[in-house]
Amino acid sequence: MKRIAVLTTGGDAPGMNPAIRAVVRYGIANKLEVIGVFRGWSGLINEEIKVLDHRSVSGIISQGGTILKTSRCVEFRSKEAQERAYNTVKKFAVDGLVIIGGNGSFTAGHEFGKKYNVPCMGIAASIDNDINGLDYTIGSDTAINTALNAIDNIRDTATSLERIFVVEVMGRDCGFIALAVALAGGCEDVFIPERPVDLESACHDIVHGNLIGKVSWIIVVAEGAGKAEDFAKKINGITGLETRAVTLGHIQRGGRPTAFSRDLALRLGKEAVDALLEGDRDKAVGLSKGRVVRIGFETAIKKKEFDLEGIYKLIKTLT
Amino acid sequence: MKRIAVLTTGGDAPGMNPAIRAVVRYGIANKLEVIGVFRGWSGLINEEIKVLDHRSVSGIISQGGTILKTSRCVEFRSKEAQERAYNTVKKFAVDGLVIIGGNGSFTAGHEFGKKYNVPCMGIAASIDNDINGLDYTIGSDTAINTALNAIDNIRDTATSLERIFVVEVMGRDCGFIALAVALAGGCEDVFIPERPVDLESACHDIVHGNLIGKVSWIIVVAEGAGKAEDFAKKINGITGLETRAVTLGHIQRGGRPTAFSRDLALRLGKEAVDALLEGDRDKAVGLSKGRVVRIGFETAIKKKEFDLEGIYKLIKTLT
Amino acid sequence: MKRIAVLTTGGDAPGMNPAIRAVVRYGIANKLEVIGVFRGWSGLINEEIKVLDHRSVSGIISQGGTILKTSRCVEFRSKEAQERAYNTVKKFAVDGLVIIGGNGSFTAGHEFGKKYNVPCMGIAASIDNDINGLDYTIGSDTAINTALNAIDNIRDTATSLERIFVVEVMGRDCGFIALAVALAGGCEDVFIPERPVDLESACHDIVHGNLIGKVSWIIVVAEGAGKAEDFAKKINGITGLETRAVTLGHIQRGGRPTAFSRDLALRLGKEAVDALLEGDRDKAVGLSKGRVVRIGFETAIKKKEFDLEGIYKLIKTLT
Amino acid sequence: MKRIAVLTTGGDAPGMNPAIRAVVRYGIANKLEVIGVFRGWSGLINEEIKVLDHRSVSGIISQGGTILKTSRCVEFRSKEAQERAYNTVKKFAVDGLVIIGGNGSFTAGHEFGKKYNVPCMGIAASIDNDINGLDYTIGSDTAINTALNAIDNIRDTATSLERIFVVEVMGRDCGFIALAVALAGGCEDVFIPERPVDLESACHDIVHGNLIGKVSWIIVVAEGAGKAEDFAKKINGITGLETRAVTLGHIQRGGRPTAFSRDLALRLGKEAVDALLEGDRDKAVGLSKGRVVRIGFETAIKKKEFDLEGIYKLIKTLT
Repeated sequence: MKRIAVLTTGGDAPGMNPAIRAVVRYGIANKLEVIGVFRGWSGLINEEIKVLDHRSVSGIISQGGTILKTSRCVEFRSKEAQERAYNTVKKFAVDGLVIIGGNGSFTAGHEFGKKYNVPCMGIAASIDNDINGLDYTIGSDTAINTALNAIDNIRDTATSLERIFVVEVMGRDCGFIALAVALAGGCEDVFIPERPVDLESACHDIVHGNLIGKVSWIIVVAEGAGKAEDFAKKINGITGLETRAVTLGHIQRGGRPTAFSRDLALRLGKEAVDALLEGDRDKAVGLSKGRVVRIGFETAIKKKEFDLEGIYKLIKTLT
Repeated sequence: MKRIAVLTTGGDAPGMNPAIRAVVRYGIANKLEVIGVFRGWSGLINEEIKVLDHRSVSGIISQGGTILKTSRCVEFRSKEAQERAYNTVKKFAVDGLVIIGGNGSFTAGHEFGKKYNVPCMGIAASIDNDINGLDYTIGSDTAINTALNAIDNIRDTATSLERIFVVEVMGRDCGFIALAVALAGGCEDVFIPERPVDLESACHDIVHGNLIGKVSWIIVVAEGAGKAEDFAKKINGITGLETRAVTLGHIQRGGRPTAFSRDLALRLGKEAVDALLEGDRDKAVGLSKGRVVRIGFETAIKKKEFDLEGIYKLIKTLT
Repeated sequence: MKRIAVLTTGGDAPGMNPAIRAVVRYGIANKLEVIGVFRGWSGLINEEIKVLDHRSVSGIISQGGTILKTSRCVEFRSKEAQERAYNTVKKFAVDGLVIIGGNGSFTAGHEFGKKYNVPCMGIAASIDNDINGLDYTIGSDTAINTALNAIDNIRDTATSLERIFVVEVMGRDCGFIALAVALAGGCEDVFIPERPVDLESACHDIVHGNLIGKVSWIIVVAEGAGKAEDFAKKINGITGLETRAVTLGHIQRGGRPTAFSRDLALRLGKEAVDALLEGDRDKAVGLSKGRVVRIGFETAIKKKEFDLEGIYKLIKTLT
Repeated sequence: MKRIAVLTTGGDAPGMNPAIRAVVRYGIANKLEVIGVFRGWSGLINEEIKVLDHRSVSGIISQGGTILKTSRCVEFRSKEAQERAYNTVKKFAVDGLVIIGGNGSFTAGHEFGKKYNVPCMGIAASIDNDINGLDYTIGSDTAINTALNAIDNIRDTATSLERIFVVEVMGRDCGFIALAVALAGGCEDVFIPERPVDLESACHDIVHGNLIGKVSWIIVVAEGAGKAEDFAKKINGITGLETRAVTLGHIQRGGRPTAFSRDLALRLGKEAVDALLEGDRDKAVGLSKGRVVRIGFETAIKKKEFDLEGIYKLIKTLT
């Protein structure tokens, strides 16, 4: 293994830059040449690449986003595009690929790696924290804190104006962010895609709360469970109480990565390079039970399982 | 003047709490008894009041929202409600009212004060910064920084994914926040209610930018100028480029007040009490040209005038 | 078990308040009466206690410090003081104690619990993250992020003025914070108490860096490894280069707890109450390998062991 | 005027980067060529310069520090160095200099400009806010908020452990930051160089506070008034109460500039270029009474006068 390439694909996540930094510098320290591919798979298809040296990743450790840019490359599903990508791999004698991204990226990496016999290692980076077999992905801690700051702000108004707020957070089909934020924010309820939403019961709680003097209320909604606007209208319809919707949206993707997101990114960057050096492939590196692990791409891209019932009950018990 | 009452009305703004702290402690230091009225005018109507002592405002200086709660009290427009409010004033021998709020609050204060001969002083607190004759109101600096943090986060994604974002900020009919945020955020364009929106021209700039390699773009929209969602759809329709909308919403109302919002709040709290002690009334205190001033309620509630053309041009020149 | 008491002792840590919230509300939900003890052991000695109901912990989830106050109670080492504390336990029919704190607190809890047969459960809360057998304590994530923000700020000046900075972080005898911050901050070196400090070699690196154009440098020092001021003077003496010292100090103890610190605090609060209800005692609850665990006080208070060599090497490799 | 040069000198301040951005882009928009000089005067002496185009200032608006680097250049006081600097000016046909910095920078600019007949305009950038005739300089708002965050954190511990803290903030001979922070932080006292420090009286207040139950106390010290460590020792000696010192230090220089610091920087950048284009020289641009103004270098470098007595009294009244 003499030369590896690194790319970021799919939605950006805070911590991708420190991960790039680690792949580049740890790779160089281990006598590898490291090539950066721009705009994810698209850059591999179109030969948008550049050799990265030690200095090229200076100062990026504290920055959100990704200096390599990223894209959701639909084109890569076609055989022709994959051929072109493989040609780039051959032309530049790339011995291994480090793919920084989430489920979609790993699915593509799994297929591409198998089809063309290219060693691919994934680094789990996704604010959604929806990679099966992993406790944390790069960026989720930052996104959760960003959403929590927003919730704390909204709490000020909810308390001052005595209102009901429905706050939609990111997470795709996964309720992880929503649960973490609802727990940390002391929120009164949370709707996630993994559990049926019982709106009647939620509204009953609100009305009952009102009767005993609990007049402000924040409900967190995972985007996979529905739209904040829709829920707000329904709650208003059922309870007659003024209800406001806030959709946090893309503010959750960016921003300075937290210490946790950075430290994880740096450790995973090292692990991915180590894996390639050891001849490992077709796996994603991530954090499980407090340790850095490698899990097969095929496992990683399955529907994530995690203990949500315990957290959900705790949220409801503590409000 | 022996006893004054303080209330917060309308939308909450970060810095209302330090303003309350100043009114209470500065009042007490000047031998006044200070009564807190809860839920704005509603509390005056319903006798929801409490004597506030030195300790009752401990630790609130750093907190968003208002410990006195607030409300948008439609009921207060009726004569009957006003009579009841006045009865509370008489019953508790309140010699002066300090009204912490914005335009709506001052309009009500102006009418109520005149009709019932109650000395009323306003403290300009509104994230919208839409009080005529004043450069800054309590809370606007905090709201602008909250919105700016959000924009900085969105910039990470806009740059990484090379996308167009339309970001809606608060400000009611006033483009002040939007201009301040767009300038500080290095945003490519800004739509405000005070200027006609030229969407064709904006889209022309975007397409031209794309041709010369400027592929990410953030447009700030003041809520008074339209909906981010609508603009995003139209821009996508005209340019064919993927365009995302983010509505920052209520996160802009809350949060720890900035130093500027706190210092202003504390100075204005003092000024309002001083004014009442000097026999002044029917005025709002605020900041103009770097100094604390008093302006008549009638002037304050007019449509705000400020130099927006200079800032707008600077934004366009610097992108 | 009908009535439990909760106290916070030793240095305060961000997340103590959410832990109190969880103990109180989860306890009440499980039919317990919960008593708050003020100022740690001191409050138990002097009967400074108060019944805590559901509302008494409203709004504290986002606040640093501890509403129960805390103290480093030297007096508690005397037999007489312990007797008085036990009298309070008996007098108010306290069936179990929840002790929120660190090593010192657990040592005291272990002794007191054994001597007087009082069921005691500890909740690991300490910014130092120095509890043996646990991966994270409440507050360490917040402290690390606070220190990291400071380092990011200092980096701006280090880069702009091309200077060497020695930054001292907290952590008592434990280098955990220092390592986490140095890694996440992209710092050039780190001195911790668990490894001998090789100042000659560090200075050699600095001078060598200078020769190849790396002119700014941040060295993190754990307080247990020495004083930033002393190191700065020595480095200046050896290298002749201008070197500045910054001691972050108590800013690392306070502030809004991060999502991680809050979620951990809430889960540990539940676990401590569960343990007492199940008849468990003489243990601390904390996080190990991603899961909430109970470990004996005797194990917890031993010198913490953790993999520092791997992190240290990674830091040095990536700079 | 065809070509101007821009440099940053003295201590870095958050907002220098947006100021550079404005000078470059506004200059280019006005048909000027803009040259960046590195490391302040040092770069002018040693010909460390580079043409700056539109793209060269992309993405710096949100970054602390200065991409042009800065230095405190003692060498520039010598005639020989000034001659070399002037040779650079001539060699590259620089028609005007924009000097971003504080008092020292303006003193040097005044001398250099006069001696060699080089049009120089200053942009007031200094966290110390110590420029005479100006209400705010670039960076002071950011520094004040950074210090305030630190104070808020320390307040958590001060309240929880019931301790006295002496917190030293920056500001050189000027008490502006200290006053602003002490007011916004609700601090109990503040020592500034412009007023004699009455330690006996301060200690009397502390002891009296203790007797009536006010057991936590934060005193802000401007660096020009003395060392936090020294004051802490003296207060402990007089009162016998445990007193801790925290020196905030260089964390106050860096960090993302606030909206206020950025907007001011951008407006001042424009003004400085406008001034040169209009043939103006030997002046600094800054904010006075809410407006952008130009003041002669000779006035700017005098000892700053501002109303400190009013703020000081307000701080003492409100605690």
